[in-house]
Amino acid sequence: MLVSTRNPLNIGAAARAMSNFGFSDLRVVNPYEKAFREAKSAVGGARVLAQAHEYGSVAEAVADCNLVVGTTAVRTRELQHAIRLVEAGARLMKKSPGNVALLFGSEKYGLSNDDMSHCHWLLRIPTSDQNISMNLGQAVAICLYELIRDGRRPTKEKGTQKLASAEEMERITTVLLDVLHGSGFLKRRQVADADVRIRRVVRRLKWPERDATVWTGMLRQILWKLRQGGPPEG
Amino acid sequence: MLVSTRNPLNIGAAARAMSNFGFSDLRVVNPYEKAFREAKSAVGGARVLAQAHEYGSVAEAVADCNLVVGTTAVRTRELQHAIRLVEAGARLMKKSPGNVALLFGSEKYGLSNDDMSHCHWLLRIPTSDQNISMNLGQAVAICLYELIRDGRRPTKEKGTQKLASAEEMERITTVLLDVLHGSGFLKRRQVADADVRIRRVVRRLKWPERDATVWTGMLRQILWKLRQGGPPEG
Repeated sequence: MLVSTRNPLNIGAAARAMSNFGFSDLRVVNPYEKAFREAKSAVGGARVLAQAHEYGSVAEAVADCNLVVGTTAVRTRELQHAIRLVEAGARLMKKSPGNVALLFGSEKYGLSNDDMSHCHWLLRIPTSDQNISMNLGQAVAICLYELIRDGRRPTKEKGTQKLASAEEMERITTVLLDVLHGSGFLKRRQVADADVRIRRVVRRLKWPERDATVWTGMLRQILWKLRQGGPPEG
Repeated sequence: MLVSTRNPLNIGAAARAMSNFGFSDLRVVNPYEKAFREAKSAVGGARVLAQAHEYGSVAEAVADCNLVVGTTAVRTRELQHAIRLVEAGARLMKKSPGNVALLFGSEKYGLSNDDMSHCHWLLRIPTSDQNISMNLGQAVAICLYELIRDGRRPTKEKGTQKLASAEEMERITTVLLDVLHGSGFLKRRQVADADVRIRRVVRRLKWPERDATVWTGMLRQILWKLRQGGPPEG
């Protein structure tokens, strides 16, 4: 819910973030510009914007809501409101039955005392002391992100790559050692346990299983070329 | 790090979010508008913007970074990169020793395959299927928020090894490419984007910083031998 927003681009940005995170019920209270529905920054949020409802007061806008949460940049208001960090606050909002409203004030002044008097409590994004004032569209995006973020359950790391088997790594090591001997790298260094050292160096890399054959192929080709001993063609 | 950003307002929005969350090292690669430092949406981010560094290529921009993370809206790229949700990814980034780069591509196309070939893995914001494309400034804000959000505060993993810098990896890549051309490996396979593919294969390995020079040394010796073209002595 956007209260007294001055810049229609920010309404558009809020609509876009809502669309990104699957929210649809945008309510606008006393926007400075009536033509906010044409906001250009609403790429992908046009439908949210078209369906937005406009109200003349916060009271009307929150009438059907069971929990009303305001947002603030300030840490310690002289206000009588509890202030929660967005993470903890979003958790409470998700648990709340019924309709939940999240209010954002004007770019310049935030929510007024009167606006806040309609709120059960306030939400704060943990910004740095040096610059607590966020862009409205960015603040909306972060709050909505927290609402859809799958809290406690640590996201499964799907992309984590399977590592090459010890057998594959040993194959890489063997060909690499041949290449290093062939190129003179291991002759120059008269180290007794060179093989062991190279094996250790190879093991310190985490070879993804999918690439093991590519690396073995490269090394075999290099070895072949070294053994052929002809002048380089490339 | 913003790559090929078209709209200077988005650079300003990124700078503002950085200022909000206490980040300062903004790097800009090939912005469409040279006058990006005057971006109007940088309220409170003017200092970040003034100190931003401009680069001609991703390779230069990430040279001193030990972990390079890209961002993508797409769920399943045909790409060879691991994709992590922003929450899990941010945790890894916080644990990583050394410099960490986070790359955002252009508003229209995101990061190119070539840009991504410099990345260790990719980060994704869990947007709704209906509209996966976020506003750049909002995406930056959410990623930075995740980086400062005080999660379970993961216990520091002591044994984590510092990774080679992007510059060192690019050096390895360059010599490896020379070796692969010299050995005929890359001639046999007539693939247009061979360099990009090899760069990706190299990035998928996690090169410990301590071993970077050993690998470069091995490859240089092999290259020297290949160029010498004499019969193998070993």
